[in-house]
Amino acid sequence: MLSKQSIENIRVFALGGVGEIGKNMYIVESDEDIFMIDAGLMFPEDDMLGVDVVIPDISYIVQNKERFRAIILTHGHEDHIGALPYILRKVNVPVYGTKLTLGLVEDHLKEKGLRKKSDLRLIDEDSRIKAGQIPISFFRVNHSIPGSLGVCIHSPQGIIVYTGDFKFDQTPVDGKFADIDKLSHIGKEGVLCLLSDSTNAERPGTSPSETSTGEGIKEVFQEAEGRIVITTFASNVHRIQQAIDAARQQQRRIAVVGHSMKKVIDIARDIGYLHCPDELFIDTDKVNDLDDNKVTILCTGSQGEPMSALTRMAKGAHRQVTIESGDTVIIAANPIPGNEKSVSRIIDFLYQIGAEVVYGDRNVHASGHGCQEELMLMLNLLKPTYFIPVHGEYRMQHAHGELAEKAGVDPDHIFLVDKGERIEFDNGKAKQVGKVPSGNVLIDGLGVGDVGNIVLRDRRLLSEDGILVVVVTLNKKNGGIVSGPDIISRGFVYVRESEELLEEANKKVSATLEKCMSENINEWSSLKSNIRDVLSRYLYEKTKRRPMILPIIMEV
Amino acid sequence: MLSKQSIENIRVFALGGVGEIGKNMYIVESDEDIFMIDAGLMFPEDDMLGVDVVIPDISYIVQNKERFRAIILTHGHEDHIGALPYILRKVNVPVYGTKLTLGLVEDHLKEKGLRKKSDLRLIDEDSRIKAGQIPISFFRVNHSIPGSLGVCIHSPQGIIVYTGDFKFDQTPVDGKFADIDKLSHIGKEGVLCLLSDSTNAERPGTSPSETSTGEGIKEVFQEAEGRIVITTFASNVHRIQQAIDAARQQQRRIAVVGHSMKKVIDIARDIGYLHCPDELFIDTDKVNDLDDNKVTILCTGSQGEPMSALTRMAKGAHRQVTIESGDTVIIAANPIPGNEKSVSRIIDFLYQIGAEVVYGDRNVHASGHGCQEELMLMLNLLKPTYFIPVHGEYRMQHAHGELAEKAGVDPDHIFLVDKGERIEFDNGKAKQVGKVPSGNVLIDGLGVGDVGNIVLRDRRLLSEDGILVVVVTLNKKNGGIVSGPDIISRGFVYVRESEELLEEANKKVSATLEKCMSENINEWSSLKSNIRDVLSRYLYEKTKRRPMILPIIMEV
Repeated sequence: MLSKQSIENIRVFALGGVGEIGKNMYIVESDEDIFMIDAGLMFPEDDMLGVDVVIPDISYIVQNKERFRAIILTHGHEDHIGALPYILRKVNVPVYGTKLTLGLVEDHLKEKGLRKKSDLRLIDEDSRIKAGQIPISFFRVNHSIPGSLGVCIHSPQGIIVYTGDFKFDQTPVDGKFADIDKLSHIGKEGVLCLLSDSTNAERPGTSPSETSTGEGIKEVFQEAEGRIVITTFASNVHRIQQAIDAARQQQRRIAVVGHSMKKVIDIARDIGYLHCPDELFIDTDKVNDLDDNKVTILCTGSQGEPMSALTRMAKGAHRQVTIESGDTVIIAANPIPGNEKSVSRIIDFLYQIGAEVVYGDRNVHASGHGCQEELMLMLNLLKPTYFIPVHGEYRMQHAHGELAEKAGVDPDHIFLVDKGERIEFDNGKAKQVGKVPSGNVLIDGLGVGDVGNIVLRDRRLLSEDGILVVVVTLNKKNGGIVSGPDIISRGFVYVRESEELLEEANKKVSATLEKCMSENINEWSSLKSNIRDVLSRYLYEKTKRRPMILPIIMEV
Repeated sequence: MLSKQSIENIRVFALGGVGEIGKNMYIVESDEDIFMIDAGLMFPEDDMLGVDVVIPDISYIVQNKERFRAIILTHGHEDHIGALPYILRKVNVPVYGTKLTLGLVEDHLKEKGLRKKSDLRLIDEDSRIKAGQIPISFFRVNHSIPGSLGVCIHSPQGIIVYTGDFKFDQTPVDGKFADIDKLSHIGKEGVLCLLSDSTNAERPGTSPSETSTGEGIKEVFQEAEGRIVITTFASNVHRIQQAIDAARQQQRRIAVVGHSMKKVIDIARDIGYLHCPDELFIDTDKVNDLDDNKVTILCTGSQGEPMSALTRMAKGAHRQVTIESGDTVIIAANPIPGNEKSVSRIIDFLYQIGAEVVYGDRNVHASGHGCQEELMLMLNLLKPTYFIPVHGEYRMQHAHGELAEKAGVDPDHIFLVDKGERIEFDNGKAKQVGKVPSGNVLIDGLGVGDVGNIVLRDRRLLSEDGILVVVVTLNKKNGGIVSGPDIISRGFVYVRESEELLEEANKKVSATLEKCMSENINEWSSLKSNIRDVLSRYLYEKTKRRPMILPIIMEV
């Protein structure tokens, strides 16, 4: 058994996942040991132009890597595992997860050539591990992906519980209930602090059971006469199972379209999470050989992604399948915030080609996150002394804090933390003890963190009004214009239709240069800023636009 | 009375407002006459980078302007009046609207220097006008702005009805009900075709009364102990009235912050749509002289616009008022699709500074558009022979079409039209008769239509990976490099952190040029495309990014 002293003082903080939806990453730290729970990514905000994904700033971990012991993954969603490859490149420690989680992680690591170097360790809800000196156990929760866990950190001051993403499903598809009995035992043992999922903290009531979506899907299958195309999140194995069951019941064969859908189905069947006979599946190129009412197409694209299987099949850009009038398309997913427009565009497009579209309120989607009643149940089972609402934007954390108050948590014991803000537990008492470096690391192509505010500012400027490059060659000796000025514009105006404007701009530049020369202003930086000012003012007056102006002066 | 012959053949089509939310514009055309109902704008989609607003393509109207007789505006929202200034510059005809509509229009026209040239004509629900030979009457509807009308076009074949934006409010704030009696008379006279608002065609039930939001607002006013900040759409005069009433009841004075809010309140008080004593209002700089519980701030910014009064007050960027802990902020509006993220950001920010925020499900907003029960009521009152669902994306038109079928309209008589698709009525029978030019005209600064696909494509490329300008000066005689190559990057990478990459890129360009010279390739276009290819390949390999590459070759 560990000595009390070694983890007397314990600190908890988030490097991501608070004040935002996405890139979940929570850190537990004692004087000897540090470990990480979840290592998620986030998709870029609208103003992060050209950025592919965003991960948390882990410089604190890198600086303290001699104490860094483990990464624990609660489940296999991108916003909990997606940053892993970037982290393992900098700090290689054992990674713990359940079967499906590790299956998905393996695939990611293979892609990045990191599989062999990584130390992946399988756990389940009954595992007990140690991160350095800190004992850790787990409990099962329900969520929109199988094999989801919550985490208990056993400190001598009491247990610190992190729920992961969770809901309480009273009729789970695989019959595996969230561990209410275990949770009530943990509560009795004494919970020092609870970190709990705030995603649906603003929603009253209870999140519908995953099973209810199966009923919704079955209904559509019973009614449809033509082909059925169904899309959901590839990782939602339970929903995929229910779609498969509905297809079987109606004697329909299934073609799987889309890389990530195929991948997850392979992994899930491999590890026994998905049950279906081989002969149910057909190759996509055989779809047209069957009668329409014998066909189901299970595909990616529930978020309206332009390159996804669904969009390509709808637009006639898929090699083997084209969605046609008479087909029924089930979108068994809600738009993730920010994707509303692209989802609505694909729905519109499907209606226009004459397909029947089933989405939204037709009972074919259920959230994987518990609503207020479930969050209250978690609070009441665990009766934590301290409470840190996580997973969510600030207003969701705030709403969750109010629920905790209702559940009897002392308002002074509720911490609505921002990224990097450390809560220290010492002798059973918690206090805030400063902030570690934290923030967004932007990944664009192969570049990790080489796109920052200046680059983004330039991209924003360029995206709004384009760029004008002004090139002029000057005589090294007398400063006279040897050639140019030439003005090249991109993303500003149609050159064809704005010849006059650009000609006039050209004259302004020449005049400015001559004026500078006559006043003996011949430092390049002054010349450039003069050109920029004159041109900027002129163009704004004429067009009310502010293109980026890039003067280039050559000397010969 | 008009001769039957003159409007025997009548055509109806939309130049905007179908297949989309926004820029409503409907055209009615006989062989002699054309008129327009509504002239709206739309805010740009995400992929219309740098564009300020979007209006419909009216080239068909301009081409046929000798027959163009009138513009009728159903109400004063931007998506029904915002394109007017651009249209009047090209075709100047009388503009009809109710008091508030014309008040708002006047203000727009003044801004653009068009007021004096314009012929604005006041109408109300009992007016009867003629557009050329075509008689037109009106009926009152409920909507989120006072003075909203529907339009009846009286043709010998039957009446063509356009609802405008509408709901049926059983407890309207101003006691003015939608004209159910008149509608039922119109229905008895015989409706040839109905064009009806599809915005909420997917929502079951009935839209809540505007009065219910007043109750929600009043409740918040009764509970709040500090200052109250309330924001809504500036044009929602009824909601503003209810906020004013709530403030009066609690003996709070009101400061109005934000240009458009001030403007609408002035206009609405002027024309008697808004009732409140002068002494209720205080200057914004007097706010801090009063006790907190005596203050209401009525402001713009319900959509989280970064430059709005609400955002500036929240961020401490407003000269006179700063929102503080203890203030209650009521956001009495829903986010318009596409604004969800910016609204959620301002809510988060307000919570973080300690303000109480009231929004969403707290009964402080009601849609101005009727839901399914109301749409059914309209259909049942008018019993149209033909039906054209308008105002909405295609899936909303589709849902509205299904409602019309339920209401007994022959499915073959329902037209789900796209922009420009003309429906012709001849001898009481309708058919589709081709398409007129239609589409988006993008307005960026002062430019109308000078930003098109190529400019947008360039802006998109620039926004994703930035630009690299490569400048080199060659000797005119022997093609040798006189100076450069110099590489300047914007929005691509931090130069400081990528010196090696850019140096190597530089060498590649020099090598390419030398190779070209040795092979006697010396046409500029070939040199440029060689530079572009080599550099593009190299940068993609190193960074997986594709910046725009702009080679500039000078000769001396």
